[in-house]
Amino acid sequence: MSQQNRPGTPEQQNRPSAPEPHDRPGAHDTPRRPGRLYEYIDDGPAIYADSFAIIRREARLAHLPDNAERLAVRMIHGTGQVDLADDLVVHPDLVPSARAALRDGAPILCDATMVATGVTANRLPRDNDVLCFLGDERVPALAREWRTTRTAAAVSLWEPLLDGAVVAVGNAPTALFHLLEMLASGAPRPAAIVGCPVGFVGAAESKQALTEFAERFGIDVPYVTARGRRGGSAMTSSALNALAKEEE
Amino acid sequence: MSQQNRPGTPEQQNRPSAPEPHDRPGAHDTPRRPGRLYEYIDDGPAIYADSFAIIRREARLAHLPDNAERLAVRMIHGTGQVDLADDLVVHPDLVPSARAALRDGAPILCDATMVATGVTANRLPRDNDVLCFLGDERVPALAREWRTTRTAAAVSLWEPLLDGAVVAVGNAPTALFHLLEMLASGAPRPAAIVGCPVGFVGAAESKQALTEFAERFGIDVPYVTARGRRGGSAMTSSALNALAKEEE
Repeated sequence: MSQQNRPGTPEQQNRPSAPEPHDRPGAHDTPRRPGRLYEYIDDGPAIYADSFAIIRREARLAHLPDNAERLAVRMIHGTGQVDLADDLVVHPDLVPSARAALRDGAPILCDATMVATGVTANRLPRDNDVLCFLGDERVPALAREWRTTRTAAAVSLWEPLLDGAVVAVGNAPTALFHLLEMLASGAPRPAAIVGCPVGFVGAAESKQALTEFAERFGIDVPYVTARGRRGGSAMTSSALNALAKEEE
Repeated sequence: MSQQNRPGTPEQQNRPSAPEPHDRPGAHDTPRRPGRLYEYIDDGPAIYADSFAIIRREARLAHLPDNAERLAVRMIHGTGQVDLADDLVVHPDLVPSARAALRDGAPILCDATMVATGVTANRLPRDNDVLCFLGDERVPALAREWRTTRTAAAVSLWEPLLDGAVVAVGNAPTALFHLLEMLASGAPRPAAIVGCPVGFVGAAESKQALTEFAERFGIDVPYVTARGRRGGSAMTSSALNALAKEEE
């Protein structure tokens, strides 16, 4: 990093209320906590407990299966939005099916590195593999050959691991459409699908397809999804963290 | 992964409309694209272009600095919510200051691994370092000693790199409060702050503090934030990706 040419704001220099800067960057070999200037809760477990209590007070969860209450709370927590509850659709078998699979050592297959990164390792019951194939060397050529997204091509590489796995789509609608097409074409069935792609092109449609998949193709894989455009890696890894361990 | 005891749904076996499953998992050595069953756009660049067009049609961006239009569009893209625009607050110097810093080789310092993971490497102008100190071995002891979160403690380790850096808080309100307290105590000034923690306890308050920081302490660091509870790693890494490269 260059220290020269740092973009500055001229008024920084002349405000009388600004504290003296350090003489040089990195002056403190031992980090020290700066003086408290704000009132805020800095106790990690208390922040979690208070957050979950606020969510339970504000969110409408009655339409969800009883076994999915903690799942919904944690997904809301990850997104900061209690009205997400109204868009959630949870298959009645999703939570027990995913929990049993993970206790049995099933891998978690993710469409995006961010989703995999968001899974909290110490919540996993069997040190389960958390995998994303987006960086696999076969992906670029497959995406070109098939004229689809790299994320969708990477989903095809799930197939040898798909039987009984927990799969998670938290980014690309094309990945969820591709997964459903694989399942309808006879690919092995995962134990659970966390299907929460995000965005403006295809996200709502892919999640609608997920909710109608069992009816249309007779393949009833337990799933959780959020209707509409909202989704994403935080929502998805929050769901995985809830499924990995019952305790909050 | 064990293939035994896979949780299953009994009705899967008896639906006449289900295609024949593969004889064995991993039967296909060469992945093949499954047959198309849904109509959807699978061209990556077209998905981006259509998404950005939808956002520009629907979002209210007029209150933002002209130079922040692409930043706002990309942040909305990352979250799937056009009404995020209404909550965005962008310092008029944020975009030029962050762009100049990154072109100059400044590092990006992130509070969460997910944020760092979300930065697209090939958008960075100088192969800039993208760093998160949450896994640093000093963090647990500092957090215990200071009675704060590990994320906040990790922010203290930014100090030697803080001068002219682009910093990003996409998870913990305590990290943003801690950063502001460091700056008010005389820590070196970053070139830009992406301050988008998420959640129900302290997130809105920490972002309010960011918007009032220059006025209160006379230290005017360019920033972008989203008022309220919304925030998170996707929003934050989307902002970083917009700042890293002007082209969409």
